[in-house]
Amino acid sequence: MADPLHALKMDAAALHAFLREEFPQVSDLVEIEELVPMRLRVVMPVRQENLRPGGTVSGPTMFTLADLGVYLAVLSMIGPKALAVTTNCSIDFMRKPESGVDLVADVDLLKLGRSLAVGDVRIWSRGPKCRHVARATLTYSLPEA
Amino acid sequence: MADPLHALKMDAAALHAFLREEFPQVSDLVEIEELVPMRLRVVMPVRQENLRPGGTVSGPTMFTLADLGVYLAVLSMIGPKALAVTTNCSIDFMRKPESGVDLVADVDLLKLGRSLAVGDVRIWSRGPKCRHVARATLTYSLPEA
Amino acid sequence: MADPLHALKMDAAALHAFLREEFPQVSDLVEIEELVPMRLRVVMPVRQENLRPGGTVSGPTMFTLADLGVYLAVLSMIGPKALAVTTNCSIDFMRKPESGVDLVADVDLLKLGRSLAVGDVRIWSRGPKCRHVARATLTYSLPEA
Amino acid sequence: MADPLHALKMDAAALHAFLREEFPQVSDLVEIEELVPMRLRVVMPVRQENLRPGGTVSGPTMFTLADLGVYLAVLSMIGPKALAVTTNCSIDFMRKPESGVDLVADVDLLKLGRSLAVGDVRIWSRGPKCRHVARATLTYSLPEA
Repeated sequence: MADPLHALKMDAAALHAFLREEFPQVSDLVEIEELVPMRLRVVMPVRQENLRPGGTVSGPTMFTLADLGVYLAVLSMIGPKALAVTTNCSIDFMRKPESGVDLVADVDLLKLGRSLAVGDVRIWSRGPKCRHVARATLTYSLPEA
Repeated sequence: MADPLHALKMDAAALHAFLREEFPQVSDLVEIEELVPMRLRVVMPVRQENLRPGGTVSGPTMFTLADLGVYLAVLSMIGPKALAVTTNCSIDFMRKPESGVDLVADVDLLKLGRSLAVGDVRIWSRGPKCRHVARATLTYSLPEA
Repeated sequence: MADPLHALKMDAAALHAFLREEFPQVSDLVEIEELVPMRLRVVMPVRQENLRPGGTVSGPTMFTLADLGVYLAVLSMIGPKALAVTTNCSIDFMRKPESGVDLVADVDLLKLGRSLAVGDVRIWSRGPKCRHVARATLTYSLPEA
Repeated sequence: MADPLHALKMDAAALHAFLREEFPQVSDLVEIEELVPMRLRVVMPVRQENLRPGGTVSGPTMFTLADLGVYLAVLSMIGPKALAVTTNCSIDFMRKPESGVDLVADVDLLKLGRSLAVGDVRIWSRGPKCRHVARATLTYSLPEA
């Protein structure tokens, strides 16, 4: 995977700076923990406003985490092109996240073509059990070079 | 569709009151415009914090609208059971919403079983063109009777 | 929807002839019943080899029906371009089809762009109840003009 | 993963025998190569009848492979219950499979609950490149114990 065609164009610091500039409303939501070509780990602390009755993290919150994770993984490979847009997402909510611990999203870019990118995301609650709470796949349409 | 098994258990006023009580953080986001058994229209005004670069409404915002729409349609049929939870969503983002106009989501409940409900959502920008900007399908797992 | 940009380029006879030429292995599976711009109805007779235990029509059979339906709807609008390919499908299987009756698939093209088309499909068993047995959404990548 | 709750109830030989008995029409399509609790590899030789114009393996063929793979993984964990049924599938077709080589599907069961199971599938063409041609996620509804 790490051939010259698949080298990083932005590192974690550059991605965070880009988010703060272009998406200030979400730039504080996540922290990039690991980044290698085609693979990324982002972490989202669980906050009160994201909770549903029974202490469940909301679906939209997990969608946002998955969407941001793939977006950052794509930008890390193609550079700071804000206009990459999500065209499709499928997401499965499998278990109730544990309360009071961070959510972790592991992103794999499965395809990075000229016009489309596909990323898989597995979301789990930080802690000893490491069980998946959600999975998602997103397709991004990439702007013309 | 309107047989006795498919009568409304909550009307729009009851649904709005339920949202304000249980989900104050989202209760102001949407307004129910039409509600008949198995079918619902909700409207969401577009606000600045939902915009992405280029004026596009964010994917998470449209996901939230679709998710809330199916949730309200399900509750209208089964009554105020907060613990209905989304288990799956597929969503396609097809066009850039027009700026400065409300988003409208039309929800069809395609299945309302004992343990699962499936709802289809078509989202469009209010205005003369009426073109779809997104579509989604959500599955809800229903609490035991 | 029926503006000049959205006129039919192939009618039902032309589509059937195209299938027989290019996809002889599936050309007998379906019959086009209705075709207007952006909308199509195809019918598939249920055959023994498609049945699962308990008389259920198999998932792959319904997938094939949905895929073919959107493919034909796309070709009807863009002409005989065999290389349009499916890039994504989400499908929900909601009820057991009734046995001994045809399956009907109603296709709506929600988007027909230069490079992507999105079609929605609702599948139901022919008969008095008209209940949906499945729904699907497919994205096709279109060959360059 | 290999705790007592997650032990195999059927091995590869038992699964093949079950397929031959219950689904003779598909039992020759696939071969189980590896099987451990919650994880399975199945292989499908590419045959002429599955090809589309340009030599592409058809979408329905890959859907069938993904569906069978998750079905077998579920049965390996819950025993020979033919009535487990697919309720949802999302599938992304990412690259053209190489011609003349087998398709390999790696299945991960991400959730095995009382009533629902969720499995992820990655499909690739056997050969030196090992690039993914498709991915899918399927939900199965499990019969009552």
